[in-house]
Amino acid sequence: MHIESTNTEQTNEVLPSIKKRWSPREFDYTKKISQENLQLLFEAACWAPSANNEQPWNFIVVTKDEPEQFNKMIAILKEGNKLWASTASALILTVASLRSSYNNSENFHALYDLGASVANLTLQATELNIYVHQMGGFYHDKAEKVFQLSENSKSVSVIAVGYLPEDENFEARKEELLSKRRRKSLDEFVFRNNWGNPFFNINDFQKN
Amino acid sequence: MHIESTNTEQTNEVLPSIKKRWSPREFDYTKKISQENLQLLFEAACWAPSANNEQPWNFIVVTKDEPEQFNKMIAILKEGNKLWASTASALILTVASLRSSYNNSENFHALYDLGASVANLTLQATELNIYVHQMGGFYHDKAEKVFQLSENSKSVSVIAVGYLPEDENFEARKEELLSKRRRKSLDEFVFRNNWGNPFFNINDFQKN
Repeated sequence: MHIESTNTEQTNEVLPSIKKRWSPREFDYTKKISQENLQLLFEAACWAPSANNEQPWNFIVVTKDEPEQFNKMIAILKEGNKLWASTASALILTVASLRSSYNNSENFHALYDLGASVANLTLQATELNIYVHQMGGFYHDKAEKVFQLSENSKSVSVIAVGYLPEDENFEARKEELLSKRRRKSLDEFVFRNNWGNPFFNINDFQKN
Repeated sequence: MHIESTNTEQTNEVLPSIKKRWSPREFDYTKKISQENLQLLFEAACWAPSANNEQPWNFIVVTKDEPEQFNKMIAILKEGNKLWASTASALILTVASLRSSYNNSENFHALYDLGASVANLTLQATELNIYVHQMGGFYHDKAEKVFQLSENSKSVSVIAVGYLPEDENFEARKEELLSKRRRKSLDEFVFRNNWGNPFFNINDFQKN
């Protein structure tokens, strides 16, 4: 599967970065992510669209270079995440700005837009062979205190980023995890004209 | 700028689909999006990650092929969006499932995960030369009634999708809009170790 992403013709394939993306539970803990690559991740994040161009996304980054700071982030995670997340090269607390910057009203789209920016970041990472595992399993109150979030900001996820391990058994462990991935079928979530009415004809799928 | 998205080496560029994406306010109203391409958009959407793999995203699609249904979607938009959105090939109401499917608890990440799936959809569209303009400007109550959303579902955005116009003045109109795009600089939203402490050294930017 070799697809040029600048190709403007029909590809019949989902974007390679979208298909390649998955959420590992282990990283090569010896590898750092360069400043240049980290910069690319956040540039990708910032080009997401947002309601009223509020750009309500914020990121607090800790890296392995500063173990004390890195461990502050490990400390806010729920138990099941602490061990594997320690193998990441960097951990990022994602934070939504909950109020509009121009009239202080509630920004209903804050989490939605943050999610889009993290999706951009994640696909950019995949492009660079960097993988991302997002966690909802952390203590929000603790995060907001430890990282001194401003009022009207909400911690939403912690994302672990790093390179995949290179040991000889890794591919087998990866394949096992990937074989367990499940997605809803399109007729469960894409509807025609009204809720619950499948958009795609099931016969169309069989043709493909 | 020619970058292969299967390239696993350093590219020094943000993914082409991310850079190319923008939100037009006009489409070529004569063009339809094929079923195959619509299917690719939703397959891209479904491969987003989600908290506990809830996949809390749903999409109600109306197309120009069914003008009466299409106009139902136009009717829920705020005035400023009705005219230009009418030029789209399809309009999609995005809907978040607000409760966990296994214990009915509130899914804090519902909107965040929906945002990620729409980001995937949008980048897949861009890859196919299809453009997306998301709108927050619509009447949620009306949408939820007209499209018969299930309880515990929340309408979040309406997205217009279509091909760009091909008339000779379009490029000039596009360039004017693009010249007005603004993004925060990285030091406003990427922090090192604590809120408010810029991650990147401003001298690093000047090198690039």
